[in-house]
Amino acid sequence: MGTARQALAIHGGCGVLPHDSMTLAEWDGARSDLGRALAAGWAVLSGGGSAVAAVEAAVNVMEDSPHFNAGHGAALNADGVHELDASIMDGATLEAGAISAARHIRNPVSAARALMNDGRAVFLTGPDADRFAEAAGFAPVAQEYFTTQKRVEALAAMKAHALAGTEASENEKHGTVGAVALDLAGHLAAATSTGGYTNKPPGRVGDSPVIGAGTYARDGVCAVSGTGKGEYFIRHVVGHEIAARMAYLGECLEEASERVVMEDLGATRQHGEIIGAGLVAIDAEGRVSAPYNTAGMFRGWVTPDGRAYVATHDELHEVTL
Amino acid sequence: MGTARQALAIHGGCGVLPHDSMTLAEWDGARSDLGRALAAGWAVLSGGGSAVAAVEAAVNVMEDSPHFNAGHGAALNADGVHELDASIMDGATLEAGAISAARHIRNPVSAARALMNDGRAVFLTGPDADRFAEAAGFAPVAQEYFTTQKRVEALAAMKAHALAGTEASENEKHGTVGAVALDLAGHLAAATSTGGYTNKPPGRVGDSPVIGAGTYARDGVCAVSGTGKGEYFIRHVVGHEIAARMAYLGECLEEASERVVMEDLGATRQHGEIIGAGLVAIDAEGRVSAPYNTAGMFRGWVTPDGRAYVATHDELHEVTL
Repeated sequence: MGTARQALAIHGGCGVLPHDSMTLAEWDGARSDLGRALAAGWAVLSGGGSAVAAVEAAVNVMEDSPHFNAGHGAALNADGVHELDASIMDGATLEAGAISAARHIRNPVSAARALMNDGRAVFLTGPDADRFAEAAGFAPVAQEYFTTQKRVEALAAMKAHALAGTEASENEKHGTVGAVALDLAGHLAAATSTGGYTNKPPGRVGDSPVIGAGTYARDGVCAVSGTGKGEYFIRHVVGHEIAARMAYLGECLEEASERVVMEDLGATRQHGEIIGAGLVAIDAEGRVSAPYNTAGMFRGWVTPDGRAYVATHDELHEVTL
Repeated sequence: MGTARQALAIHGGCGVLPHDSMTLAEWDGARSDLGRALAAGWAVLSGGGSAVAAVEAAVNVMEDSPHFNAGHGAALNADGVHELDASIMDGATLEAGAISAARHIRNPVSAARALMNDGRAVFLTGPDADRFAEAAGFAPVAQEYFTTQKRVEALAAMKAHALAGTEASENEKHGTVGAVALDLAGHLAAATSTGGYTNKPPGRVGDSPVIGAGTYARDGVCAVSGTGKGEYFIRHVVGHEIAARMAYLGECLEEASERVVMEDLGATRQHGEIIGAGLVAIDAEGRVSAPYNTAGMFRGWVTPDGRAYVATHDELHEVTL
């Protein structure tokens, strides 16, 4: 089984990610923020902190970054409103916290963690999720906090596409942030946070807060955080499916996660469409897998010797933590 | 693999079910309504209808009955409000529809089916779920439609227990209705509908609308609908766990479902508490399993020769369809 060692992987969403969709400064900014997310999570792990605390810290950085679709920079729904989904799971206890359709929580993943710790419910939705977060000590933020010019433009573009009957770029459709970690005590955790997708139906809940689908962690097996067409992650119970293939079929992390992303999701077609999907996963020995069936995925990981890499497409960028 | 044949099983919730908690007329009424639910689902299957239509029809009868915690007769949350969760899954396509925290949908499982057919989202929450249902042609009902004297008294009793710091009966805590079916074409389906539990936190989402947890169906493997402490069904991804044990470990339906209810959930303890849980499940050959780790579970099934049984505790009652 090898010795437990700390490990961390993150994602910031998958999709077509066309090079001309962002300025060079924005690409640099996104990569830099991925590096800062890794650094935040790695600092927790290196300080002997828990995998749960590490994934929260990493996701918080991406929630606070305008470059990713979660927290500040979250997508706008069809009503021009930000509705936020997030969850976190502790592989040691199988405890979990999940929030859907929240509108005023600056860092939804932190509210999900507070809910997990509170223990009275695993899953809260809507204004009651906002109220729980405020009661738990998270100062509410106005909707404007989440809004960026880019998301306003994306919504206008999606509405124009809808009006014209043309197909929007896959780039507009995905976007979620997530992290998985193994801590020095050998515990696994996963966390995911998202604004959903631009022009989504109001009240739509994706896979990010669905334990077993977009977020799953079980000690001794794996931790998984997904990004892509959430409806398919729900239908395929992606996180738990990967864990089950590993635990019951004896597949390794890479086999199981590639199988789900490339075959179960990659093979699903509706009206000839490809089901864009990606995820980061980590096993009990700290091995990382980060498959995606789209052109790119914002992602990063830290190897056991502390070397950190971020990537958007094929090319890896080493970063200093 | 045997020949596909039609089969149906339903549940109306598990718990302590003390005999003195209902009058003899109420016990008779509950059993009668279980029989009517079986008859409704069986009529669909016998007429060559789909498993999806059969589970919807069976659940509708229990939603309309005052004896079960779903639709009319749903539990009240801590604010004295009915918030309804439901979902449905088609094992043939892995398509699904799920609704959480709806307040004005007379038959939430039918709205979940309409959402599945609509296809724009798998999961809708809150007022937007109500709006979707209305737009789909389901006339909204006032909250009062769901309220029964029994639920008002149960909420008062729970609040009194909370004030006194005493433990409420398990009977007050559970209650969900669900159905699983195999149709003549060999397709499986599952559906679940609930008011949650009495005095639940506002905005709390249980496992009933969480695909993979409280509801799951996959052709060739099994269909599952759960009842019990939803938070644990979410954490253990119960429906998909049973399917994974069957598909990947080669366990039969009974082994897999008993294992999850009696060991995974039965063994989980928090503050010495037993995790009350039950479910109905059906496999690709129409075998039924209906395990529960509580004193009783409202349940029923039809054998391939058309004989129907309902039960609340150990004793089976044969009913005429």
